[in-house]
Amino acid sequence: MESLTCIKVRYAETDQMGVVHHSVYAVYLEAARVDFLERAGLPYPQVEARGVYFPVVELGLTFRAPARFGEEVLVRTRLAGLSRRDLLFRYRVERDGILLAEGFTRHLCQVGGKAGRIPEDIYQALSVLHLG
Amino acid sequence: MESLTCIKVRYAETDQMGVVHHSVYAVYLEAARVDFLERAGLPYPQVEARGVYFPVVELGLTFRAPARFGEEVLVRTRLAGLSRRDLLFRYRVERDGILLAEGFTRHLCQVGGKAGRIPEDIYQALSVLHLG
Amino acid sequence: MESLTCIKVRYAETDQMGVVHHSVYAVYLEAARVDFLERAGLPYPQVEARGVYFPVVELGLTFRAPARFGEEVLVRTRLAGLSRRDLLFRYRVERDGILLAEGFTRHLCQVGGKAGRIPEDIYQALSVLHLG
Amino acid sequence: MESLTCIKVRYAETDQMGVVHHSVYAVYLEAARVDFLERAGLPYPQVEARGVYFPVVELGLTFRAPARFGEEVLVRTRLAGLSRRDLLFRYRVERDGILLAEGFTRHLCQVGGKAGRIPEDIYQALSVLHLG
Repeated sequence: MESLTCIKVRYAETDQMGVVHHSVYAVYLEAARVDFLERAGLPYPQVEARGVYFPVVELGLTFRAPARFGEEVLVRTRLAGLSRRDLLFRYRVERDGILLAEGFTRHLCQVGGKAGRIPEDIYQALSVLHLG
Repeated sequence: MESLTCIKVRYAETDQMGVVHHSVYAVYLEAARVDFLERAGLPYPQVEARGVYFPVVELGLTFRAPARFGEEVLVRTRLAGLSRRDLLFRYRVERDGILLAEGFTRHLCQVGGKAGRIPEDIYQALSVLHLG
Repeated sequence: MESLTCIKVRYAETDQMGVVHHSVYAVYLEAARVDFLERAGLPYPQVEARGVYFPVVELGLTFRAPARFGEEVLVRTRLAGLSRRDLLFRYRVERDGILLAEGFTRHLCQVGGKAGRIPEDIYQALSVLHLG
Repeated sequence: MESLTCIKVRYAETDQMGVVHHSVYAVYLEAARVDFLERAGLPYPQVEARGVYFPVVELGLTFRAPARFGEEVLVRTRLAGLSRRDLLFRYRVERDGILLAEGFTRHLCQVGGKAGRIPEDIYQALSVLHLG
């Protein structure tokens, strides 16, 4: 499965170069990831309510072209890797079919405040997305 | 005219109290204001492209109840004041009809880098919104 | 007592007008307030560790002149109001003696997740600062 | 040369997991990089004033342990790569000698709005830092 998330660039997200500040892309990826999980039937607020967290342990981003205030960017999100203990998401940020940035985030599973196995039902739900 | 802007709370916008950080509301109001202007036929990127800016010179916010990650909040925006040189917007931030915050922003008109009169066509367009 | 907090403007804090985005001032005031409390012997992390919170219930800011990337701004913080249940801080943001912005924040006391009385020892410590 | 930059974690930088949000590290690295350049006699505001920019084209971060509100973190910055057209910085974020995160940023040189060669005097100044 690939989910599509549309994000409208906010004024506050620009910097004095007149483009979206690079740190903001990490926030865009996160919004897209939350969207991905929600569409997959795993709303992240409910996951956290069970004491299960997927903190980011690695982040990679390559910037190809700038995004600007008022533009609508599209984030394509895929679950590119899955084990019993971690997840890998891959993202493409586009505007009108033009690639602006691509990246990944790797996440460990935390249960009750420490690294742990992904609960079985969540793992099964993610497996379907990973294959799809 | 009152415009309605729907905003989904991002994880990055929360703080360790588990609610949206108060500084983020200024960003929400701005997104709502940009939306208001766009619906009114005054897309802010085009306004700025003419060298016309409406920097915030005053900001007031009262917080009634917290917003949380994953919630959809609604911002109601009105143009509450208009003169030849400045603008006043008023906002209500709600969730399911519950008032979370209310506030205002006052803006001066800047043309070519200094305080100036609002260009006539923009002023006329805003006048309609102010009355409406 | 008035505390002085020096803040160096970060690139990420600017927007495409080439100045510090207005929402960032709320973050500056907060950093200055935390500093004020720490110098007063009330480190906020320790206050929170007791289950006592002072969420912002009102925020007001007036912007006089912009701050820019790389500049050092000085925030002057005073405890301007104190009751058994709330606090009022007033701030002046300056650069080289020039007033850039002034504002206030009002805070309610929350104990164990609901509005409550400020614990006596914290109230006494704040009283001294309020008079001073 | 390795520069050391001390950063005090702000409340606004935490998220509802009670730790610094991962996107904030990109802002920390940037503050550290600006510091590095300033200490090296290349204040970035002056570099930009000449129409020379070093936008981030790649960002990598690995997170080892969380940072929390009120903590002082130390960012160690090195210029790890230098060519006529790009730069590579490497960073370690520590607290009391414990590694919290490590990362890198790669930057292209932009002159007058397009990719270009690093001006000779800046290149020479950077070469010294690279060797050092």
